[in-house]
Amino acid sequence: MIDPSNMTLTEVASAIRKKKISSVEVTKAMLARIKRWQPHTNAYVRVDEEGALKAAKAADRELARSKDVGPLHGVPMAHKDMYYMAGKLAECGSKIRKGYRPKETATAVQRLEAAGAIHVGALHMVEFAYGPTGHNEHLGPARNAWDKERITGGSSSGSATAVAARTTYVALGSDTGGSIRLPAHFCGVTGVKPTWSRVSRANAMPLSFSLDTVGPLALSAKDGGLIQSIISGPDPLDPTTLAAPAWNTKAAKRSIKGLTIGVPSNFYVDDLESDVAKALDQTIKTFKKLGAKVVKVKLPDQMMVSAAAVMTLAVEAAATHAHWLRTRPDDYGAQVRNRLENGLGYTGVQYLEALRWRSAAIAQHLAAMGKADVILAPASRAVAPTIAETDVGGALDAEAIIQQVTRFMRPVNYLGIPVTVIPVAHTAAGMPIGLQIMGRPYGDETTIAFGRAFQDETDFHRKAPMPS
Amino acid sequence: MIDPSNMTLTEVASAIRKKKISSVEVTKAMLARIKRWQPHTNAYVRVDEEGALKAAKAADRELARSKDVGPLHGVPMAHKDMYYMAGKLAECGSKIRKGYRPKETATAVQRLEAAGAIHVGALHMVEFAYGPTGHNEHLGPARNAWDKERITGGSSSGSATAVAARTTYVALGSDTGGSIRLPAHFCGVTGVKPTWSRVSRANAMPLSFSLDTVGPLALSAKDGGLIQSIISGPDPLDPTTLAAPAWNTKAAKRSIKGLTIGVPSNFYVDDLESDVAKALDQTIKTFKKLGAKVVKVKLPDQMMVSAAAVMTLAVEAAATHAHWLRTRPDDYGAQVRNRLENGLGYTGVQYLEALRWRSAAIAQHLAAMGKADVILAPASRAVAPTIAETDVGGALDAEAIIQQVTRFMRPVNYLGIPVTVIPVAHTAAGMPIGLQIMGRPYGDETTIAFGRAFQDETDFHRKAPMPS
Repeated sequence: MIDPSNMTLTEVASAIRKKKISSVEVTKAMLARIKRWQPHTNAYVRVDEEGALKAAKAADRELARSKDVGPLHGVPMAHKDMYYMAGKLAECGSKIRKGYRPKETATAVQRLEAAGAIHVGALHMVEFAYGPTGHNEHLGPARNAWDKERITGGSSSGSATAVAARTTYVALGSDTGGSIRLPAHFCGVTGVKPTWSRVSRANAMPLSFSLDTVGPLALSAKDGGLIQSIISGPDPLDPTTLAAPAWNTKAAKRSIKGLTIGVPSNFYVDDLESDVAKALDQTIKTFKKLGAKVVKVKLPDQMMVSAAAVMTLAVEAAATHAHWLRTRPDDYGAQVRNRLENGLGYTGVQYLEALRWRSAAIAQHLAAMGKADVILAPASRAVAPTIAETDVGGALDAEAIIQQVTRFMRPVNYLGIPVTVIPVAHTAAGMPIGLQIMGRPYGDETTIAFGRAFQDETDFHRKAPMPS
Repeated sequence: MIDPSNMTLTEVASAIRKKKISSVEVTKAMLARIKRWQPHTNAYVRVDEEGALKAAKAADRELARSKDVGPLHGVPMAHKDMYYMAGKLAECGSKIRKGYRPKETATAVQRLEAAGAIHVGALHMVEFAYGPTGHNEHLGPARNAWDKERITGGSSSGSATAVAARTTYVALGSDTGGSIRLPAHFCGVTGVKPTWSRVSRANAMPLSFSLDTVGPLALSAKDGGLIQSIISGPDPLDPTTLAAPAWNTKAAKRSIKGLTIGVPSNFYVDDLESDVAKALDQTIKTFKKLGAKVVKVKLPDQMMVSAAAVMTLAVEAAATHAHWLRTRPDDYGAQVRNRLENGLGYTGVQYLEALRWRSAAIAQHLAAMGKADVILAPASRAVAPTIAETDVGGALDAEAIIQQVTRFMRPVNYLGIPVTVIPVAHTAAGMPIGLQIMGRPYGDETTIAFGRAFQDETDFHRKAPMPS
């Protein structure tokens, strides 16, 4: 038997389909890794060992019978605990949704199931996906697979650290204000945030209608692209998807030779820690070696874009939660309740003005990009800070530190653009550093192509942490 | 030469196409009627005599040459002064837009032009379409063709009184809170408010994105249906139209035999003046005679629906005008400025909650309708009040009277449902009374079919006022 523990999603899926390894073997190995890692990462909120093994057995039987199976046939995986699966718990990292069993299944999950995926469990997340660190008053913090005293980032905390620890080949996250990208950076995995409207949010827990996006934390850009090729596309249950283009598999595989990378001369290069600045320079060199052109770009005022994102998010999140804020305010954790209540103060006109500026902001962004196919930028000024120093309830400077490490996240959500985050370096202390490859609207495939090109050339994404 | 002054739109269009009368003759006769009526109605803000006659001559030449012309070939008409026509003035009843010449043409106007229509002038409207009476501090009030001391209703004030006076065969209006239906009722013409999303609002002056609708004031339901068949349908410039069904000409002509009319037992029958109550009873009898079934329906709390409409309208209108409210507040008329500033106080969460209730409210409305194809209800408790008694600047009770006469309007905008208003009676003093035929969502054609059936049987829509 070959060892599935070092495989990526595409590799293990291929091995199962070629019957080099069975789904049951893969699932058992995954369950063992979850057990070993759980005390370190706190990544899983539920594991359904019995259900997973039963599904794996069924997948093996099916494979023995049939030649035509889906691209994820028999692959076990786990997702952020906000993707509804009919009849199963979806507690959204909250007390309020404790015991909630939705009647419908999220469209994204349905599509993964149709491709053959098996569910093993549900992953830790920030309460209602509204927070960037990975703290959770109800569940305790998720812990970074590379250093358990450090944060995972959030809100897709469990997804990132579970993938980093190789306890799942892939995990759906969601990104409303950085919730896929920041954890990908902090945990050294690949994160794919699609163009807004490209992946259905139907029957995933909503936070902010105008900003929510659905995508995977994965072990490679190739894996992330495979997931997006499966879950992208029109869904009548989320009408925003109806006008988006179909996934272009060829474009996600194309060579980056001759393509142009824009490197910001402002905002995303301010106040970087030297390790991050060095990682950016090194990555630019690698991309040049691979044949990409590199140009400097001066972006429009990103603080304005961030402010519009924050206002949109604050109002929509508060509206999403308005009923519970009235009826069950004390059942929220203090930090999330504060964040939600902040949104009650904005006027309707402020909200609509923030929304209305969006097309102008996108136009300005595209003008600044010029002919660049992507923009390459840090995901954060620094590596993951510690859980203690970012504990809003405990540390005096926590809010300031959180502001500093999250400031490269929000403009992307307001602009709605696609981003693939790839790990590109590790510090001397072993903490990973990721960079954002930001595409043009609907240029998701191009960001994947850049990630694949980098990962074909380098091994940063292959480096795995050791359990403590 | 036949006399075009008593013809409807479909009749005059057919006469031109059959060369029984020329476009020039029709246009000259229309220009003469405008001159005669203008001192009475104040309906026109601009008349382009030269341009209209030039276009009419071109239309006649074209007709002599070609057999294949559009259904409105050579028909002169005028629209509310908020439909943009590239390079022409569109002043929106305001001081702020004085001298404004848009670069684009409204999609609805483009489609009328493509069908052969000729533009003669632009019509009076309430400042920025934000008011129900027809008062305008900049232009003076529009005056009702049936009694010049009475209001036309608004905001499509000029459109309604111009059609009533037979100075145009048809006129586009807009309906955000009753602005087509109330003037149709007060002025004794047919008004067609489409299902929200069925007619493109692109390059028409916006007021409230979630409520704005575009439709005609006309001399008959048949004429109104013809206009809707031309202007309805998908327009990429207004993405809300993309999922709406195509116009069904057959359905707009079908017999109403066996169809069901719901007559409300609540809200729309409260506090009616006896003439209006009598007109409703009489119309029910006529529809029964035509083979329709009549059932009583108890509607959900319409004050709640109105409140949601008012909040949506207030916030969106204030957001639409936010820039000018900051930079040119003194250039608004006092009444419109007050109305706009009222919208600044609502929170974003209130606004989103008002919007979010919409699908539930529609579901409740449809449940109450049961199997009814349409609901038949008064447009107002009374006929048109006087200009003096509804002058907010001058009369003490003005706001109260306005509230009373407008309360049957707003639920329809929130629900987004289609309505055809038809004139069904005249009081002893000669003032017209209209009723609302409210359809199911996307049931626009059925409301037209009911209007046509009534007008095939009766002559109320043929009765014309005399110039004073």
